[in-house]
Amino acid sequence: MDVIRDIARRVSNWGRWGSADERGTVNFITPEVIRRAAACVKRGAVFSLALPFAGDGPQFGQGGRINPVHLMTSLQNQLGADPEGPRYSDDVIMMPLQCATQWDSLAHVHYGGQLYNGHPASTLTAAGAARNGIDKMAAGIVSRGVLLDLARVHGVERLQPGHVISPAALEAAEQAQGVRVESGDVLLVRTGHIRAFTVDHDRIAYMKQMPGLGIACVEWLHAREVAAVASDTNMVEVFPLEDPAVMLPVHALCIRDMGLTLGEMFDLEALASDCARDGEWTFLFNAPPLPVTGGVGSPINPLAVK
Amino acid sequence: MDVIRDIARRVSNWGRWGSADERGTVNFITPEVIRRAAACVKRGAVFSLALPFAGDGPQFGQGGRINPVHLMTSLQNQLGADPEGPRYSDDVIMMPLQCATQWDSLAHVHYGGQLYNGHPASTLTAAGAARNGIDKMAAGIVSRGVLLDLARVHGVERLQPGHVISPAALEAAEQAQGVRVESGDVLLVRTGHIRAFTVDHDRIAYMKQMPGLGIACVEWLHAREVAAVASDTNMVEVFPLEDPAVMLPVHALCIRDMGLTLGEMFDLEALASDCARDGEWTFLFNAPPLPVTGGVGSPINPLAVK
Amino acid sequence: MDVIRDIARRVSNWGRWGSADERGTVNFITPEVIRRAAACVKRGAVFSLALPFAGDGPQFGQGGRINPVHLMTSLQNQLGADPEGPRYSDDVIMMPLQCATQWDSLAHVHYGGQLYNGHPASTLTAAGAARNGIDKMAAGIVSRGVLLDLARVHGVERLQPGHVISPAALEAAEQAQGVRVESGDVLLVRTGHIRAFTVDHDRIAYMKQMPGLGIACVEWLHAREVAAVASDTNMVEVFPLEDPAVMLPVHALCIRDMGLTLGEMFDLEALASDCARDGEWTFLFNAPPLPVTGGVGSPINPLAVK
Amino acid sequence: MDVIRDIARRVSNWGRWGSADERGTVNFITPEVIRRAAACVKRGAVFSLALPFAGDGPQFGQGGRINPVHLMTSLQNQLGADPEGPRYSDDVIMMPLQCATQWDSLAHVHYGGQLYNGHPASTLTAAGAARNGIDKMAAGIVSRGVLLDLARVHGVERLQPGHVISPAALEAAEQAQGVRVESGDVLLVRTGHIRAFTVDHDRIAYMKQMPGLGIACVEWLHAREVAAVASDTNMVEVFPLEDPAVMLPVHALCIRDMGLTLGEMFDLEALASDCARDGEWTFLFNAPPLPVTGGVGSPINPLAVK
Repeated sequence: MDVIRDIARRVSNWGRWGSADERGTVNFITPEVIRRAAACVKRGAVFSLALPFAGDGPQFGQGGRINPVHLMTSLQNQLGADPEGPRYSDDVIMMPLQCATQWDSLAHVHYGGQLYNGHPASTLTAAGAARNGIDKMAAGIVSRGVLLDLARVHGVERLQPGHVISPAALEAAEQAQGVRVESGDVLLVRTGHIRAFTVDHDRIAYMKQMPGLGIACVEWLHAREVAAVASDTNMVEVFPLEDPAVMLPVHALCIRDMGLTLGEMFDLEALASDCARDGEWTFLFNAPPLPVTGGVGSPINPLAVK
Repeated sequence: MDVIRDIARRVSNWGRWGSADERGTVNFITPEVIRRAAACVKRGAVFSLALPFAGDGPQFGQGGRINPVHLMTSLQNQLGADPEGPRYSDDVIMMPLQCATQWDSLAHVHYGGQLYNGHPASTLTAAGAARNGIDKMAAGIVSRGVLLDLARVHGVERLQPGHVISPAALEAAEQAQGVRVESGDVLLVRTGHIRAFTVDHDRIAYMKQMPGLGIACVEWLHAREVAAVASDTNMVEVFPLEDPAVMLPVHALCIRDMGLTLGEMFDLEALASDCARDGEWTFLFNAPPLPVTGGVGSPINPLAVK
Repeated sequence: MDVIRDIARRVSNWGRWGSADERGTVNFITPEVIRRAAACVKRGAVFSLALPFAGDGPQFGQGGRINPVHLMTSLQNQLGADPEGPRYSDDVIMMPLQCATQWDSLAHVHYGGQLYNGHPASTLTAAGAARNGIDKMAAGIVSRGVLLDLARVHGVERLQPGHVISPAALEAAEQAQGVRVESGDVLLVRTGHIRAFTVDHDRIAYMKQMPGLGIACVEWLHAREVAAVASDTNMVEVFPLEDPAVMLPVHALCIRDMGLTLGEMFDLEALASDCARDGEWTFLFNAPPLPVTGGVGSPINPLAVK
Repeated sequence: MDVIRDIARRVSNWGRWGSADERGTVNFITPEVIRRAAACVKRGAVFSLALPFAGDGPQFGQGGRINPVHLMTSLQNQLGADPEGPRYSDDVIMMPLQCATQWDSLAHVHYGGQLYNGHPASTLTAAGAARNGIDKMAAGIVSRGVLLDLARVHGVERLQPGHVISPAALEAAEQAQGVRVESGDVLLVRTGHIRAFTVDHDRIAYMKQMPGLGIACVEWLHAREVAAVASDTNMVEVFPLEDPAVMLPVHALCIRDMGLTLGEMFDLEALASDCARDGEWTFLFNAPPLPVTGGVGSPINPLAVK
């Protein structure tokens, strides 16, 4: 934990937005940032970055995570006396809030008995997260999105599992794409690894190992004042870990110390192809979480509008 | 059914966007409409129109609809050997897709053995909606939103249950607010009735009876080429019904004949107050549904950006 | 807590069946007791003591308890090519383990950081009960059942909510019925209160207040070496409490100190009528819990065989 | 279907217990049979025949069947003001009614538009089984159990997948064990195949192929007037099928034509060892289903008492 605590001292945002804050770096999204984001809409093209929510999703039971169970509660139920008259159908879903494309809330990972901004771990009970729950993000997350296509910059279809993304690689992508990540932006990091699931249909290859951000990126994300960071993998950070003795350092430092929201399993394939075509790597990004009271995450359907 | 079939002949959009179409009036949202929507962002202010998703939501068991059941699957689970090291928490939700703020998909209501665009009712099974499911709306719903505040125009805090909204009332609101609903817009109709739940905490008063659109509005919605219409009630249309012999005519005609998506239980209170303050009744509207494969609806967190 | 701790000293069974025991008073059910139970089968008549498991059950959302949600996962699914050939249907249920007729496991209630037999409360986590879970009762509960019909002995259809049952009343019932509760027996206490739900259909009247065992019965149950005790109410013990300052004393002392399993919401009406008719108040009692690993309770369908 | 329809004519029990009957061969369990069953209790030994209901159960997602999802809804919740005072814990389960040890109801399989006893298939909807539901078996299933240990008689630890059990093999087991299946008995057929799951922990080997009853056994079960038949596999009948063109003939004929209840995934290992030891192959069998209203099956914990 020494490695983590050492970096934590440098990147901590505790108290930065007041002792009661539960939203962290989303506070970087100022009205000006939102106006800048809206100005990115030039063509009127919309891209969904979500995986389908279905029984054949990426989960295979690891850690008790299952794919959504979707069932009909009313099926063609007749209203009134006329069988030719209106009928309605209803349905229900049971799903882990972490089953597919999702935001991790700032209550998802913590250490040392404290969540982001010093809220005590005792606020996190079987009743849910009384602090830092995803419901605190109800009025978001809308900002300018910036896609950095690490796979394309490396000239490969996809980065390999275990590939560690460095700050230098992020900056190389900025230069190659002619874009710069600014304060309040939502950073989308494409590795192409999602193709292990969407193209190869290999859940285990997709979920058990992945390329991703290395621990060195944490200070870079802090310096750039990123509002949120998402990737096309299940963890955003690289796995297997750089140092097996340091568990989930990017999660621990981003979520608990910086208050930086992480987005996982974003399908960036169609958006990346479009950006490569028109050379525009910024867009209006919109991914409102379901305000599940006390939720430690939320399934989402993020949209990029160009 | 004669009343419905008669109007259906005049408002049907079957075939308008091809025989395979499953998106209906959302097709009115052209790139130009989306650019017009983005241009509505002037201040950079965001409003969430969702009710909280929680066990104390508006449902009271009617028709098998329950409030969300939110449970922890992992609670402060230790990662690695160090008890002071990172811990994670996961959760799961079970909820009717119609439990709170939501979109009805074009498979939610049908009659005469056919869904919107003539897709056979046999495509709607215990496995879900193979046609017109909410997953077909994945890349939406982003457009210009127009709020018509019927309660404010009538000079009341809220319209009474059973109050029938007429086309004339909608146009009176347009004139009073100095706005006009155009092709591709998402129309938000405020009645104030949601206060029966959010202020009075009376689920039954909120869910069992409500003010809403009368059947005469259907042709008006068709003429204006509205992309979607939402309200702050559980049905959008008035209940008790205008004619007890004609079941859910607005649902039947909008969803099945026009292919018009309905949004229910939108909390429009904060947005309406802001619009009244600055006189701006249009905004960028963004409400991406969760792409639940075969879903007949989706819980949503609609955002209005001004 | 002084009252509880004082009685606890006298009724504690901790260590009585070894320091590893997780079954408590069910250990009183010896092979001899089971043979005595089987000998009670004289006519070959079977009585189910369960409420139906359905959406219209007794729960009304109190404490997050809902009624079972029963849904079809496969509906008349065709097997093979012939539509006239075999079809199958499957279903799923989501229910609180405490939603209707049930056993409380010995992990359901505890105090002072310890469960029955001194097992630490830390064994009870979001993953379930590692100690004293209902799965430890898999090979039970089969024994001789003895029904004491308190309502009938009092000459009323049902005892009133708040009515405190005393040891004297239990012994009066024994004498009136000509039966005696012996070591290893399962005691069924009928109050008639279940009629508030089954006859009056008033969930709230049934669930919020009830007649039941008073704290004085705890030592009586201990002296008689009862294996388990069940009643036709939601709590077995009286509510409102005898002393508002002493929370659930019967649950606390029976479950945590004696290791006595409690059964709730048993429908004893048909069985009681039959026993009154033939004068036989003992029978083979059989209520195997579902061995839910780590469950703190189990839904059951108890059978009485005469 | 000709093969099935031909046998159906000879084994049909439609109308045998009246046109309204929904219980089928369970009607063979007369009071006399129950008395004979109770007389089998000689030692007072109890055996649970259930698999644990847990997340690591035998399901692997086939046909949408998942293992039970067990979650805590209340975890050590403090009652009253004193933190040292009583605390309670509650939990919830979501499980397919067919996930582990279970009864198939007489609505589980049908063909030709009719369920057992001619009840129309239209009674089986998204709301459940209005006819032949497992709730109709609430007062059962208690009878004499007879275990036929096919593996032991063949001198093997377990029969191989695809092994077809014939009537001759059943009678050979009767002779070897010195027992005879009589009217009203519950027949338990041990193949040993469950060890693929309980010993080898190979879900797929256990669930995808299995030894079991061949189609010729149907008429034998009919002639012997068996009340119910259960086995230690997922299907009771052999799979792969004897004739790929005849889908699930034993399910179709037993459930739909005879009204014979099938029990699946019974763990017979401990019971079989005991019976082999003492030479007693009959016992009091008790497996009350949860009376899930409209359920097409029920999870159970069957008990054998010797």
